[in-house]
Amino acid sequence: MQKVLNVGMVGYKFMGKAHSHAYAVVPKFFQPAAVPVMKAICGLYPQEAEAAAKTFGWEGYETDWRRLVERKDIDLIDISTPTDSHRDIAVAAAENGKHIFCEKPMAINLAEAKEMLQAATKAGVQHLIGFNYRRVPAIALAKKLIDEGRLGRIFHWRAVYLQDWIVNPDFPRVWRLEKAVAGSGSLGDLGAHIADLALFLVGDIASVSAVAETFIKERPLPTAATGLTAAGGKEKGKVDVDDAVIFMAKFKNGALGSFEVTRFATGRKNYNCFEINGSKGTIAFNLERLNELQFLSQEDDADSRGFRNIMVTEPTHPYVAAWWPPGHVLGWEASHINEVADLCDAIGRNVLPSPSFADGVKNQAVLEAAARSMESGKWEEVPR
Amino acid sequence: MQKVLNVGMVGYKFMGKAHSHAYAVVPKFFQPAAVPVMKAICGLYPQEAEAAAKTFGWEGYETDWRRLVERKDIDLIDISTPTDSHRDIAVAAAENGKHIFCEKPMAINLAEAKEMLQAATKAGVQHLIGFNYRRVPAIALAKKLIDEGRLGRIFHWRAVYLQDWIVNPDFPRVWRLEKAVAGSGSLGDLGAHIADLALFLVGDIASVSAVAETFIKERPLPTAATGLTAAGGKEKGKVDVDDAVIFMAKFKNGALGSFEVTRFATGRKNYNCFEINGSKGTIAFNLERLNELQFLSQEDDADSRGFRNIMVTEPTHPYVAAWWPPGHVLGWEASHINEVADLCDAIGRNVLPSPSFADGVKNQAVLEAAARSMESGKWEEVPR
Amino acid sequence: MQKVLNVGMVGYKFMGKAHSHAYAVVPKFFQPAAVPVMKAICGLYPQEAEAAAKTFGWEGYETDWRRLVERKDIDLIDISTPTDSHRDIAVAAAENGKHIFCEKPMAINLAEAKEMLQAATKAGVQHLIGFNYRRVPAIALAKKLIDEGRLGRIFHWRAVYLQDWIVNPDFPRVWRLEKAVAGSGSLGDLGAHIADLALFLVGDIASVSAVAETFIKERPLPTAATGLTAAGGKEKGKVDVDDAVIFMAKFKNGALGSFEVTRFATGRKNYNCFEINGSKGTIAFNLERLNELQFLSQEDDADSRGFRNIMVTEPTHPYVAAWWPPGHVLGWEASHINEVADLCDAIGRNVLPSPSFADGVKNQAVLEAAARSMESGKWEEVPR
Amino acid sequence: MQKVLNVGMVGYKFMGKAHSHAYAVVPKFFQPAAVPVMKAICGLYPQEAEAAAKTFGWEGYETDWRRLVERKDIDLIDISTPTDSHRDIAVAAAENGKHIFCEKPMAINLAEAKEMLQAATKAGVQHLIGFNYRRVPAIALAKKLIDEGRLGRIFHWRAVYLQDWIVNPDFPRVWRLEKAVAGSGSLGDLGAHIADLALFLVGDIASVSAVAETFIKERPLPTAATGLTAAGGKEKGKVDVDDAVIFMAKFKNGALGSFEVTRFATGRKNYNCFEINGSKGTIAFNLERLNELQFLSQEDDADSRGFRNIMVTEPTHPYVAAWWPPGHVLGWEASHINEVADLCDAIGRNVLPSPSFADGVKNQAVLEAAARSMESGKWEEVPR
Repeated sequence: MQKVLNVGMVGYKFMGKAHSHAYAVVPKFFQPAAVPVMKAICGLYPQEAEAAAKTFGWEGYETDWRRLVERKDIDLIDISTPTDSHRDIAVAAAENGKHIFCEKPMAINLAEAKEMLQAATKAGVQHLIGFNYRRVPAIALAKKLIDEGRLGRIFHWRAVYLQDWIVNPDFPRVWRLEKAVAGSGSLGDLGAHIADLALFLVGDIASVSAVAETFIKERPLPTAATGLTAAGGKEKGKVDVDDAVIFMAKFKNGALGSFEVTRFATGRKNYNCFEINGSKGTIAFNLERLNELQFLSQEDDADSRGFRNIMVTEPTHPYVAAWWPPGHVLGWEASHINEVADLCDAIGRNVLPSPSFADGVKNQAVLEAAARSMESGKWEEVPR
Repeated sequence: MQKVLNVGMVGYKFMGKAHSHAYAVVPKFFQPAAVPVMKAICGLYPQEAEAAAKTFGWEGYETDWRRLVERKDIDLIDISTPTDSHRDIAVAAAENGKHIFCEKPMAINLAEAKEMLQAATKAGVQHLIGFNYRRVPAIALAKKLIDEGRLGRIFHWRAVYLQDWIVNPDFPRVWRLEKAVAGSGSLGDLGAHIADLALFLVGDIASVSAVAETFIKERPLPTAATGLTAAGGKEKGKVDVDDAVIFMAKFKNGALGSFEVTRFATGRKNYNCFEINGSKGTIAFNLERLNELQFLSQEDDADSRGFRNIMVTEPTHPYVAAWWPPGHVLGWEASHINEVADLCDAIGRNVLPSPSFADGVKNQAVLEAAARSMESGKWEEVPR
Repeated sequence: MQKVLNVGMVGYKFMGKAHSHAYAVVPKFFQPAAVPVMKAICGLYPQEAEAAAKTFGWEGYETDWRRLVERKDIDLIDISTPTDSHRDIAVAAAENGKHIFCEKPMAINLAEAKEMLQAATKAGVQHLIGFNYRRVPAIALAKKLIDEGRLGRIFHWRAVYLQDWIVNPDFPRVWRLEKAVAGSGSLGDLGAHIADLALFLVGDIASVSAVAETFIKERPLPTAATGLTAAGGKEKGKVDVDDAVIFMAKFKNGALGSFEVTRFATGRKNYNCFEINGSKGTIAFNLERLNELQFLSQEDDADSRGFRNIMVTEPTHPYVAAWWPPGHVLGWEASHINEVADLCDAIGRNVLPSPSFADGVKNQAVLEAAARSMESGKWEEVPR
Repeated sequence: MQKVLNVGMVGYKFMGKAHSHAYAVVPKFFQPAAVPVMKAICGLYPQEAEAAAKTFGWEGYETDWRRLVERKDIDLIDISTPTDSHRDIAVAAAENGKHIFCEKPMAINLAEAKEMLQAATKAGVQHLIGFNYRRVPAIALAKKLIDEGRLGRIFHWRAVYLQDWIVNPDFPRVWRLEKAVAGSGSLGDLGAHIADLALFLVGDIASVSAVAETFIKERPLPTAATGLTAAGGKEKGKVDVDDAVIFMAKFKNGALGSFEVTRFATGRKNYNCFEINGSKGTIAFNLERLNELQFLSQEDDADSRGFRNIMVTEPTHPYVAAWWPPGHVLGWEASHINEVADLCDAIGRNVLPSPSFADGVKNQAVLEAAARSMESGKWEEVPR
């Protein structure tokens, strides 16, 4: 008899759509140890929640997340809401004995992230933090190559995550540009992703030095509620989060790191790129070409050495056997589907998935040190 | 009240998986005029058919396609089987008043393709031939740019479709390498796709001159039944289809065309690339980077003219608004999902989808002329 | 004592500039067995010839090539004139015991090319035909990899050479568009280059099938004499050479070849690209990125196999040790400089350089077969 | 009558070769207001100096730079020696009324650079600092586009200069790894170049924060004297310069800058890349593909906007008209040749070339601030 995992999800915007899609697709492509069942989606407004349930294929809906986390027929709580609500939902979910899948960034600050970890640990539930890019096959392959020692000693990590959606000064002051709701700007949104990849692929970070800028300090307040297409009115509001952040890092293993995130890189849409230089080779990746991994091996013959453009679409590559034949490329959403497949499998087998809340806390500690450094203008230790 | 489109599908291998996925996803991302309902899948062997129905989410299954096409509760027959069965299924479906979605290549030869068109036309049903690449957003954008006149007069079409899955001489003589079942080798499999794109983007073809080669003329007969992972035994069988075909074409509008397809391009996995040169600009595309379209406009300033790499992931681009935010790339399967969305919409609105069986017949006529030219060593007119 | 090679060159336009530059640079970067000395340049008009001599650094000039080839103080005659004069100059040079360096295409037709080879052979002089691209380091490396067996059995040759300099119908009918002077259009100009690379890298061609098109059949006659900037007047003249040619080929070793050349590929400037697929690997090259060679080796591990982008700028690569440190890229002119270095070295060591007139004759035979096929619409054997 | 510029050059290694080549080639491709004449090259050892003079085409040689700068028949002193000698030679040259062309980095520290500027200014001679990359046509085009306002307000500068020539721990401790001679490691060598490009393209830098690392702290002392092929012995010596430096910068105009240089990026040979994001567009460049410039214009139609890959080989592009037809790419050395052409022209017209020693001083000030920040761990103002 196949195990079943009953899911309740809070949130129905961008991440809500991506996760809903993932729960629906997983059973058709993967055989996880527990099969997800889409029990209920939760949103504030009954009409919208009902519509989302219908569109995405959830059995029902709730309008109060507190009711959802108390439902006996739910095993996993999926938190796909704005950052400032993560802590409360996660702690309540843990207290009700639910497994937890929480979107990134983990929390509004390090203290709250630690509370979440503590609550989940105490409750003995499983937990995953939503750094989906670890499940891009090319990045999973990068991890494998590094673990096999094919890069040797690592000298450099170099990453950027560039977008351009607020270059226009008429773009309104949506909630993502408000510190009280979002915690930070590009740092938590984009920086959290590349910090996670650095922690995943290179290792722990000892200290950072950061600089931030807010290029446009005031914007029209939104008249319509939300989304990238939100329109602005005549009244203006202050932007109190960072538009862009650069930070340098010293890894505990001696490597140097450079990171840059911005929402002001005209023409760059979702340009999440990194490069890792080691004594035996180099790896490079670009999310806008996510089916490809660049790999240079110093062990190749001198006359025919060069960056290999690996099409990560072979059955021998991570996750790919579940999908299509070679050369039939995957889309961005596959990272979420692979993630949910692993999550369901881990819960079904009763083991802790990765990255867990402990990884989320580590990530939050890096962001916290960066935020501190933006203020102090000095190097800041990453707190434990 | 939303219209419903009840679907019965024959076949459950590669295309069966892609189509099943598409029927399931369409209602979550699109609002077609008729919503597909996955009624029944059909396969020869009851156990496999039942398993496929369960995995992919079909309500039931059949083991005889004749039964399926006669079922009163089915509106659309999806033909995802090997080529030699297309004609019989399509004609029977038409005679039972079902709409038809048939995979490419349309038929084993031109005569059968014409029969299919005739039957469907006579029955007054809607029909679509499965040239899914027309629905890759970048290719739909290419079509739009051409229709707007942004390439001017077209001089050249240049296309290759390169794969490498049978370079190894130990790869067995599967049914795709048998003329009686497959009709042809790379010509019908890969050539049909790029011939369709040429007809779609440039226009009708007047005549062709072709050459074919079978590099490995004998292979081990398969011991296990199917798939790319099929193993071969000691006994050998003849390969009587083409491994590779090159053909040159004269379009009716005066443009020159070059086409090449092969299963012997080591390292090329699904390398479907084309370039179109016009008096005002050039377009280039590569299926392995299907979210990008190269476009050079002669109307740009001389000092800053260059091939633009358009990330076809903006809401203004065809199909993209239904998907993710800018820069969040789509995978190969999106071409099938977009296709099924359009198909359901056309049937719901009672209009003929495109490409219809008439386009399939045109395509088959080009393949037929190419096949004739391989034999004659001369230019052959494309028959009407 | 270092040997000296006294050079006399006929022609002072595009190739004259490239060759003059090469003779001047060679002694500074290479140590050929004979050092070139720039004795005299020859052109019809005294003023232009004198100016060219001064600019390019020739000791003197002549206005009659017959005088030049008779001069006792000249060892090597460099023929950088339009095609229709090659035969006469070469035969006269041979009869006067001069070594010969002749630009491509070799001659106006196969018969004249054979005469040239015969004359040079009879005279016992050394001869080189100017297929400079063999000396692009990346192409020399491709040759080495093939000779070492790293591609295995070769299945496919696929090449294009695309330009766009006559897309504009107002571009005048210069001599290159006149059959009597140029012999052919894109075929001899661009097709000769890629035919040479095919012969060099893959081997002899048995037969070809070709199609040609002249998209613009009449153009303004030039008012000023020459060059890409030539202006046209009101009177029009017929264009009787091909604007574009496609041809398919059967190699003697069983490989299939496809070739396409055009002057109507808007946006493509000097786009000379080829790909070779073998049983063990694939090579790809693009002249617009001439410091790079793409190489896929089927012998790489399955999980990390991919096209290697080899930066051909290492001291272990052909010709590179004479130039700059790794990563300091070379320009197009380096192909001519490397060529002249090898030519001077071969003559100094009294051996036949490669490609010799015998290779030029083979090349001309392929062009001749293609020209015949354009007329007949059939496959034509490459004559011996 | 054409003006003549008599040149004396100190140094005959890598830069000596590049500059010698440039002086020889300039008169053949350009018409500068003064034509360079290669009078004398200067090196410590008579045999090597004589050989260099002969190979590179200098009329004579000297073994004492003091004698060279005093020669009456010399107009321009070219300083192509290690950094620690720049100040003395430049000051002496100025005192003798010679124009000066000095390689980068300008000096061992800011104080010496200022002395050089002062001496040259006082003497009223012309001076150029050797930031040759400003004369790569693609970078000159980038400057033009920025000056025309096509990027709008600039938000971001992002640059890396990556090499890998000392990854191997057996590579010896050559003089470039010795602080007393080289001043610094990657900072002065590579950082000086990208700092210059930032100053050129974006503007003045207010402050910087830097971090440096020396990954391999001890290396074999060289047994043979010099060069990349230097061998090391058993004795070891300390490496007291930086292997890698990252620095962040605040520009005076409000833009943010990130810079990274290293000699430990395995597989990167001469990877000098930058990207500039402005409110109206973005520019990106890679020295290993130096004939190309990436440009995205926000003013393009939304549906066909994308990074344009401009082949900077058109006659309308900076410097290109002097060279070859479109698509015939230039090599790295062209940056030096274009530089020398401009230098000779400026001196011939009696105007100050650019970048002058004043730019060199600005550059040195940025490096000095970075070096200070490496020590302090804090942001440091760029001194005036």
